[in-house]
Amino acid sequence: MGALDVLTYRPNPSEFAWTFGGAAPIRRLRPETVLELWTEDAFGGKVRGPDDLVSKVVEFPFVNPQTGPFYVEGAEPGDSLALHFVSIEPSRDWAASTTIPLFGSLTTTHTTAGLQEPLPELVWMYEVDAKRRTVTYRAKESGFVVDLPLAPMHGTVGVAPAAFEARSSLVPDAHGGNMDTPEMRAGTTCYLGVNVEGALFSIGDGHCRQGEGESCGVAVEAAMDTVLIVDLIKGVATPWPRLENDDYLMSAGSARPLEDAFRIAQVDLIDWMQAEFGLARLDGYQLLSQASETPVANVVDPNYTCLTKIRKAYLPAVDVYSGAHTRLREMASAYSAERW
Amino acid sequence: MGALDVLTYRPNPSEFAWTFGGAAPIRRLRPETVLELWTEDAFGGKVRGPDDLVSKVVEFPFVNPQTGPFYVEGAEPGDSLALHFVSIEPSRDWAASTTIPLFGSLTTTHTTAGLQEPLPELVWMYEVDAKRRTVTYRAKESGFVVDLPLAPMHGTVGVAPAAFEARSSLVPDAHGGNMDTPEMRAGTTCYLGVNVEGALFSIGDGHCRQGEGESCGVAVEAAMDTVLIVDLIKGVATPWPRLENDDYLMSAGSARPLEDAFRIAQVDLIDWMQAEFGLARLDGYQLLSQASETPVANVVDPNYTCLTKIRKAYLPAVDVYSGAHTRLREMASAYSAERW
Amino acid sequence: MGALDVLTYRPNPSEFAWTFGGAAPIRRLRPETVLELWTEDAFGGKVRGPDDLVSKVVEFPFVNPQTGPFYVEGAEPGDSLALHFVSIEPSRDWAASTTIPLFGSLTTTHTTAGLQEPLPELVWMYEVDAKRRTVTYRAKESGFVVDLPLAPMHGTVGVAPAAFEARSSLVPDAHGGNMDTPEMRAGTTCYLGVNVEGALFSIGDGHCRQGEGESCGVAVEAAMDTVLIVDLIKGVATPWPRLENDDYLMSAGSARPLEDAFRIAQVDLIDWMQAEFGLARLDGYQLLSQASETPVANVVDPNYTCLTKIRKAYLPAVDVYSGAHTRLREMASAYSAERW
Amino acid sequence: MGALDVLTYRPNPSEFAWTFGGAAPIRRLRPETVLELWTEDAFGGKVRGPDDLVSKVVEFPFVNPQTGPFYVEGAEPGDSLALHFVSIEPSRDWAASTTIPLFGSLTTTHTTAGLQEPLPELVWMYEVDAKRRTVTYRAKESGFVVDLPLAPMHGTVGVAPAAFEARSSLVPDAHGGNMDTPEMRAGTTCYLGVNVEGALFSIGDGHCRQGEGESCGVAVEAAMDTVLIVDLIKGVATPWPRLENDDYLMSAGSARPLEDAFRIAQVDLIDWMQAEFGLARLDGYQLLSQASETPVANVVDPNYTCLTKIRKAYLPAVDVYSGAHTRLREMASAYSAERW
Repeated sequence: MGALDVLTYRPNPSEFAWTFGGAAPIRRLRPETVLELWTEDAFGGKVRGPDDLVSKVVEFPFVNPQTGPFYVEGAEPGDSLALHFVSIEPSRDWAASTTIPLFGSLTTTHTTAGLQEPLPELVWMYEVDAKRRTVTYRAKESGFVVDLPLAPMHGTVGVAPAAFEARSSLVPDAHGGNMDTPEMRAGTTCYLGVNVEGALFSIGDGHCRQGEGESCGVAVEAAMDTVLIVDLIKGVATPWPRLENDDYLMSAGSARPLEDAFRIAQVDLIDWMQAEFGLARLDGYQLLSQASETPVANVVDPNYTCLTKIRKAYLPAVDVYSGAHTRLREMASAYSAERW
Repeated sequence: MGALDVLTYRPNPSEFAWTFGGAAPIRRLRPETVLELWTEDAFGGKVRGPDDLVSKVVEFPFVNPQTGPFYVEGAEPGDSLALHFVSIEPSRDWAASTTIPLFGSLTTTHTTAGLQEPLPELVWMYEVDAKRRTVTYRAKESGFVVDLPLAPMHGTVGVAPAAFEARSSLVPDAHGGNMDTPEMRAGTTCYLGVNVEGALFSIGDGHCRQGEGESCGVAVEAAMDTVLIVDLIKGVATPWPRLENDDYLMSAGSARPLEDAFRIAQVDLIDWMQAEFGLARLDGYQLLSQASETPVANVVDPNYTCLTKIRKAYLPAVDVYSGAHTRLREMASAYSAERW
Repeated sequence: MGALDVLTYRPNPSEFAWTFGGAAPIRRLRPETVLELWTEDAFGGKVRGPDDLVSKVVEFPFVNPQTGPFYVEGAEPGDSLALHFVSIEPSRDWAASTTIPLFGSLTTTHTTAGLQEPLPELVWMYEVDAKRRTVTYRAKESGFVVDLPLAPMHGTVGVAPAAFEARSSLVPDAHGGNMDTPEMRAGTTCYLGVNVEGALFSIGDGHCRQGEGESCGVAVEAAMDTVLIVDLIKGVATPWPRLENDDYLMSAGSARPLEDAFRIAQVDLIDWMQAEFGLARLDGYQLLSQASETPVANVVDPNYTCLTKIRKAYLPAVDVYSGAHTRLREMASAYSAERW
Repeated sequence: MGALDVLTYRPNPSEFAWTFGGAAPIRRLRPETVLELWTEDAFGGKVRGPDDLVSKVVEFPFVNPQTGPFYVEGAEPGDSLALHFVSIEPSRDWAASTTIPLFGSLTTTHTTAGLQEPLPELVWMYEVDAKRRTVTYRAKESGFVVDLPLAPMHGTVGVAPAAFEARSSLVPDAHGGNMDTPEMRAGTTCYLGVNVEGALFSIGDGHCRQGEGESCGVAVEAAMDTVLIVDLIKGVATPWPRLENDDYLMSAGSARPLEDAFRIAQVDLIDWMQAEFGLARLDGYQLLSQASETPVANVVDPNYTCLTKIRKAYLPAVDVYSGAHTRLREMASAYSAERW
């Protein structure tokens, strides 16, 4: 392997994207480029203490800023983009979570509309200790404190959608976007179908950690220093976002109600297994019925997201996407070796 | 600890229960009794080979036979039953799964009604190797074969429901029933609210293993030899089924759509934490948002089931339900020591 | 036509049924009997003024008392019951509606669970003027008053369910029950599939009027004097409740989410048209796509209910259920002629 | 009233819009302009006979062409647009409906994903008789033929959405779009909140008639000659589409599951009544519970749509939106008088 192409990019606030689709690319790059990026947190860095209520300091729709979009040379509709996350590290020693009026899974919302008063708007500040690999939760009322493991991830990763659409960075759908799955962590490769020339991908919404479902709608939100490697797989379509790590294949469905997100992910993984391993659809259905894990990602965004995962150990020994994950893993090792 | 009360019971086919509620108790027992039970599989043992289609060999509503109900002396509405699973072992060396017309998550059904033709009705037979702890999956079309870990569990555990209702053994709800969660395994204590005198609990629907969501609606169905210890917690109510193992507290919500099952489980665990640890509801909401796991149990039954779990390590050091799980664990050890 | 069999029945409070299924019949009758019944309101008559909050005066599960069940001689599983409503008249000059904490469509509930405070519990009393055919709505805050048309109906009509179940009178499902559709009014024939010997039907939950969806969960609740004629159609099954009046055929689906109630009703009406008129299923789908009306009945009960209706004028000139509605209409005329 | 500004516009195929938002305006106009428009049918006029299957003749995403967008001078975020439909008349003597694979309410879809085979793809052609005011339905299999009333409407009416989004013309949401409600007919005024300068509204998707729910996903699709009058209401926001005719006020919610569309429409109408009549929210909730009609519009599009309607006769005698509907009605009369 020769020298790696490395592109380092740290956006100014004026350079953020607020949609997938409908935003002009801020950089062009070739496949096999390493990207060293910085992403701001979902609040634009404005929630810094207990009095920084989102309803006061954040102006809608300037929520969930994305770093991007990046134009990938050669990417055309019908291809797939592979984004391999080498590292995701919090860039500050604090992070924030909040309740937001009429947002979250355990409240009426603007969509699941009702007449009750909104929940109180509260802010929880977290200390982030990158050395000890912890974030510190502090109850507001009872004095209870606990260190939770630091488990950094990106809530939002996506490309420009199909059908000439532009979607808010708050929305997850077939183009990826705000899926809010903890599986989007270092060591994972995310495959996304290309809908427009250049693919136009962005990332954002770093979380120091997140529960499955992200029930209050807000994770431990943090700015991130993230390294990823971009690759392009020509002539292979990806209808819904797929993820791969060393142990699992995963599909991510996004829809409402939540069972539809589950269904999409199941059918997509069945179709993926059929394409890669020749497993008949009903045989795939049976295998998933006994062997799949289906972690809920979010039950709060405009679409809910649910994954279906299956262990590679339960599948025929075939490298999917022509071995893209393995190759990207090797590039990541080469990069890390060079770097440190 | 003195000698354990042990009750051994193996039902004849005429003794099965087909509902929770509305069935007369087949045995009475005192709290702290060890039960050695046998449960038939969900098909009444009638699916034994690839030609035993459910639509031919099983007569509705004689599906999912339950072993029980058992009358627990002293149990009254407002109490909680604790059922600790000591061991769950397949009683045959084979198990079966199938597709069933218009049943399952990836098809129109009698409820999510439509006009398409049903999927083909197929049977997958599994070899069960209790020594190697595997079940063998064989694809019907491509020759693919894989051993999956044996992971026995009960799909159905419940008590008589409230409000004078009798519910089919196919239904999960606040009374437990057909939740189909892989967490119902040896080592787990299940807490159920008592709705009628004697509680009238039953168990059934053994699975050698099951994927999250049980997508085709049928797990690796098997008859089981199961040992459990029954306990009664007076004066403590349990609104929705709760589970506890050495590492986790869990609540199980059942409803449609799936997000409502998620919501029920989240709110129940928040209320449980508030009652046991004094954690304010919004503090509990925040903690679950960052730290809960929410495994989907089933997306196929009349209600869908989703759990919310939290690691005990993330909680104050308080034994819930006055330490029932620890006590039952010790009784299980004493029983096992006596037995083997 | 000879003399009509007339059975008059007014239950004592101790005689109410609280479930469909699981309750012993209070009367036996032959097909073609006229029933003169009295039904208590859903609150057992206990909400009589603005301070009679449901949470104070009503003890769960003693809600929605049913008059019945009635055993219909000769009724067997696979038959259909026809209940023709001759008249439904409020038996008092007042009626009541309320909000109920954590119940209704515009609030979190025990199922669509959340953490917000319940809505205030308020009572609206209505004056019922049977001569002017009005009920009077009075806003609690702004002084606004309006007379709404009196449009009496029964929210709850059902038989014992299948599969040995007993269901709370609050639940609508395939057995009928708490469908809460304004179509259940005088002049309508309701067809219900028989699941157990004798059918065991009950009625209750009179409403002076109700909006589509019954959004707060409580209509203008009233005791009713109701006359209906019971008939039995041997050897014809009815999978979901069907209604017929002089102008329309209707099917009533009950499920969650609401689209599943819609789907059930559409498929049932398509199958009904196929059975009665030989209309192919896809032709029926096309016809309903252009010509069906689909009034929402309730979005508040344990299952939501939605109807599909089609004008008889758009269908082949065939009398459904062998002309049962026409025959019952004639008996109703004969009864009324005798009576007044 | 002086002379009316009249703008006549008939788009070429290259001028259609395929999204709301993200398309450049094709004309600018002042408030109080009369627009004489032509709209193509949802298939671009390409389904002309039984062999013109949508999957063959229509290329996704070139579906549901819109006539527009129009830039309304002076329109700014926070204002409301009023579109009064003067007349909607089919411009051809035929219309078409079809099944489309994996689209519709009674089939698995790309979202409610499954493994069954799609339904057969069939085309039903309709004769349109503008004089007799009928469309003729012909069953494909049984020879059944019936004339249904001609009841022309627009399925799609909307403005550019908020948050920099561009949405496919197949999507209904807060910006209007593909709501598919039969209430969008001549005599109706539609109010839409303005999200961007100029509002950028479009219309399309004419239906000769449509059942509630549009169950197969395709109405009696037709090109239309449509006259509407555009007005602007400064400083009044409209959060969700609202409709007014001589007898009713209506709100249209769009979401999944269907109960959320119902909830949105109910809450919006409650808030509208509070703003215009001072009716307290809980009083409004009570009034709608007894008096609202809630017609289902579509159960097939990316969001489902449900309306809430209330008769003006049940409300205080106040003209909403400062009497916009009455004024537009008068302008319509003036236009018609001039014209014919």
